[in-house]
Amino acid sequence: MITTDILIIGAGPTGLFTVFEAGLLKLKCHLIDALPQPGGQCTELYPKKPIYDIPAYPEILAGDLTDRLMEQCKQFEPGFTLGERADTIEKQEDGSFIVTTNKGTKHQAPVVAIAGGLGSFEPRKPLIHNITDFEDKGVEYMIKEPEVYRGKNVVIAGGGDSALDWSIFLSDVAKSVTLIHRRNEFRGHLDSVEKVQELKNNGKINLITPAEVVGILGDKKVKGVVVKQAQHIEKEFEIECDHFIPLFGLSPKLGPIANWGLEIEKNAIKVDNSLDYQTNIPGIFAIGDVNTYPGKLKLILCGFHEATLMCQSAYKIINPGKRYVLKYTTVAGVNGFDGTRKEAPKAVVKAIE
Amino acid sequence: MITTDILIIGAGPTGLFTVFEAGLLKLKCHLIDALPQPGGQCTELYPKKPIYDIPAYPEILAGDLTDRLMEQCKQFEPGFTLGERADTIEKQEDGSFIVTTNKGTKHQAPVVAIAGGLGSFEPRKPLIHNITDFEDKGVEYMIKEPEVYRGKNVVIAGGGDSALDWSIFLSDVAKSVTLIHRRNEFRGHLDSVEKVQELKNNGKINLITPAEVVGILGDKKVKGVVVKQAQHIEKEFEIECDHFIPLFGLSPKLGPIANWGLEIEKNAIKVDNSLDYQTNIPGIFAIGDVNTYPGKLKLILCGFHEATLMCQSAYKIINPGKRYVLKYTTVAGVNGFDGTRKEAPKAVVKAIE
Ligand SMILES: Cc1cc2nc3c(=O)[nH]c(=O)nc-3n(C[C@H](O)[C@H](O)[C@H](O)COP(=O)(O)OP(=O)(O)OC[C@H]3O[C@@H](n4cnc5c(N)ncnc54)[C@H](O)[C@@H]3O)c2cc1C
Ligand SMILES: Cc1cc2nc3c(=O)[nH]c(=O)nc-3n(C[C@H](O)[C@H](O)[C@H](O)COP(=O)(O)OP(=O)(O)OC[C@H]3O[C@@H](n4cnc5c(N)ncnc54)[C@H](O)[C@@H]3O)c2cc1C
Repeated sequence: MITTDILIIGAGPTGLFTVFEAGLLKLKCHLIDALPQPGGQCTELYPKKPIYDIPAYPEILAGDLTDRLMEQCKQFEPGFTLGERADTIEKQEDGSFIVTTNKGTKHQAPVVAIAGGLGSFEPRKPLIHNITDFEDKGVEYMIKEPEVYRGKNVVIAGGGDSALDWSIFLSDVAKSVTLIHRRNEFRGHLDSVEKVQELKNNGKINLITPAEVVGILGDKKVKGVVVKQAQHIEKEFEIECDHFIPLFGLSPKLGPIANWGLEIEKNAIKVDNSLDYQTNIPGIFAIGDVNTYPGKLKLILCGFHEATLMCQSAYKIINPGKRYVLKYTTVAGVNGFDGTRKEAPKAVVKAIE
Repeated sequence: MITTDILIIGAGPTGLFTVFEAGLLKLKCHLIDALPQPGGQCTELYPKKPIYDIPAYPEILAGDLTDRLMEQCKQFEPGFTLGERADTIEKQEDGSFIVTTNKGTKHQAPVVAIAGGLGSFEPRKPLIHNITDFEDKGVEYMIKEPEVYRGKNVVIAGGGDSALDWSIFLSDVAKSVTLIHRRNEFRGHLDSVEKVQELKNNGKINLITPAEVVGILGDKKVKGVVVKQAQHIEKEFEIECDHFIPLFGLSPKLGPIANWGLEIEKNAIKVDNSLDYQTNIPGIFAIGDVNTYPGKLKLILCGFHEATLMCQSAYKIINPGKRYVLKYTTVAGVNGFDGTRKEAPKAVVKAIE
């Protein structure tokens, strides 16, 4: 059982900034995310695109935003349960909550902050009849740990940025990389398309287009795939491989959270925006894209404010009766849980002779 | 008469970010500030100190924060009335407001956003009986335009960062700089104290401590000051100069805004935080440090969120009946009023051969 002060569901920008604000109040956080990496929509959907409306950033790439948020909260040593979906919640007699993931990992905390964005990112799966038999046995819909593929034969399917970028990355790691796409045209950043072209020319990536994977071979684990190529005449053939990675995109689904007894409106969780973004269940808050209230804007900067106000109420729940006085970071400094301290250089009082 | 869409009172971080958010909605802004420069508390009180809780900035100097906010809103060409205090407001028959400053400058807009922070920064004045006679005639409490002092003899009084930093700056501009402080010890950044020591050693700054300016000489304008030095025996003497600049700090006062008919609580303006941070007077909003509501935190990041939501309501007031659909800056780009456009590089669709 993982225990913490604030259990955050969703490691998008809102969840990450919550770690920092909670840390200022000496509260520890643990985050659960269905994705293998933090950053939410920013990392999953548009890491290389610029955002222009983050305050005081005339421009910042979504991926860099995530990196900065991770750096900012690092001092507060957040825990992560990644690649797992929070499925159930149970209220305990002592008022705390136990949240269990689809993989059975259990987490307990007095306060739960749902920062689930548009929902848990779930892969779009190709229509291959026996594909579910091979999940986690050589079929992966997202790449959690690239080292798994070292020295292996890998088949990637897809025509967007993920398929391009992972083909490029794994061409240096895997024994062989085969990229299969149902068209000749790829859709992605110009750099990535050009890099794949280059790697293909150098024989580092095998490219098969236009084609589709229509079957998976193997017994307990993937041994190969059946490819159907459509050129002049359709033909089918087999490729030996250890892994088949269909990267057809991930799409967010509110999913099991919809059944937690929370008031839902327009696929989002209703909260009390006149105070602290608490839901209808005391102790459960909803912040960022996942919540709704009159005038709600699904913007990153709004999640930051909501997270900050929410942490004040979390503090009161966790430290009943204790008084909290807001101190400016500039004035009080920041004391990390890792023993580090950030602090403004003090003014000196010094005679000039 | 200066006319605009949103008239912003206060050019602190909240006011500056309002310009950007309004610009995204194609609304023009004009800002009034009592200070000679934008940035509010950040620039006036702690420009060289780091802030640690601006989202995605693990650390940023308050002065740099202001620079970034200015850069971010530049595309939307804000107008500025600086060094003037908004004193009165009158509602017009057409629903718009006219705001007049202490110098008589008039501004008209359908929406007023008060982003006045802790109030209008007003100088602490030394107790010299005839000082008010010389205001703007050689006595200045803040430096608006350093070029005014080129080739002039300047006396600065004060013992903090402003006095130190302006002495350093003007030592390169003015004919002579005399720095007077009632103690030998100065309180400020180590760099600044050391630099003044060095300039004093090189004869670039005349230092008189411990001493006070007790009188001002001149007729229509400043011709000199009377200095009382307290060493072993007290003695008084005169110094010729063109300018006397007492830099004893500026302190914020809510001031005339308190009489605008707005609901005030604990020296702040009550707003409807459940919707759009509007005050009890429709069309007048209060955002940032100047407002109050249940759970209010006087933090910069909260002002950013409040400004953003407020602009949505301003849009509806200014464009009645027109529907607005939120577009992500990443997707739609940003079209400046200056003709510039920021835009994410488009994905390409390209064949790999
Ligand atoms: C193309 C595009 C451009 C955008 N441009 C802008 C812009 O310019 N400016 C702007 O402000 N915003 C922009 N946005 C929106 C912005 O990305 C979102 O507002 C922001 O990501 C919301 O952050 P969040 O942390 O609330 O949620 P998310 O980023 O959605 O993160 C939520 C996380 O929670 C996880 N999760 C949800 N449910 C569960 C569960 N049950 N178990 C485990 N994990 C779960 C998800 O997997 C996800 O990783 C853009 C979005 C897109 C798609
Ligand atoms: C030493 C110090 C450290 C701080 N550290 C932090 C920190 O770490 N994190 C954080 O989030 N916040 C911090 N703050 C607080 C932060 O600076 C404020 O929250 C922020 O400046 C508020 O921004 P604002 O734009 O609402 O108001 P302000 O910055 O106060 O700006 C308001 C402006 O309005 C002007 N004004 C007011 N009334 C009038 C009028 N009638 N006519 C003309 N002009 C007028 C004023 O002159 C002023 O320039 C700190 C503050 C101080 C003093």
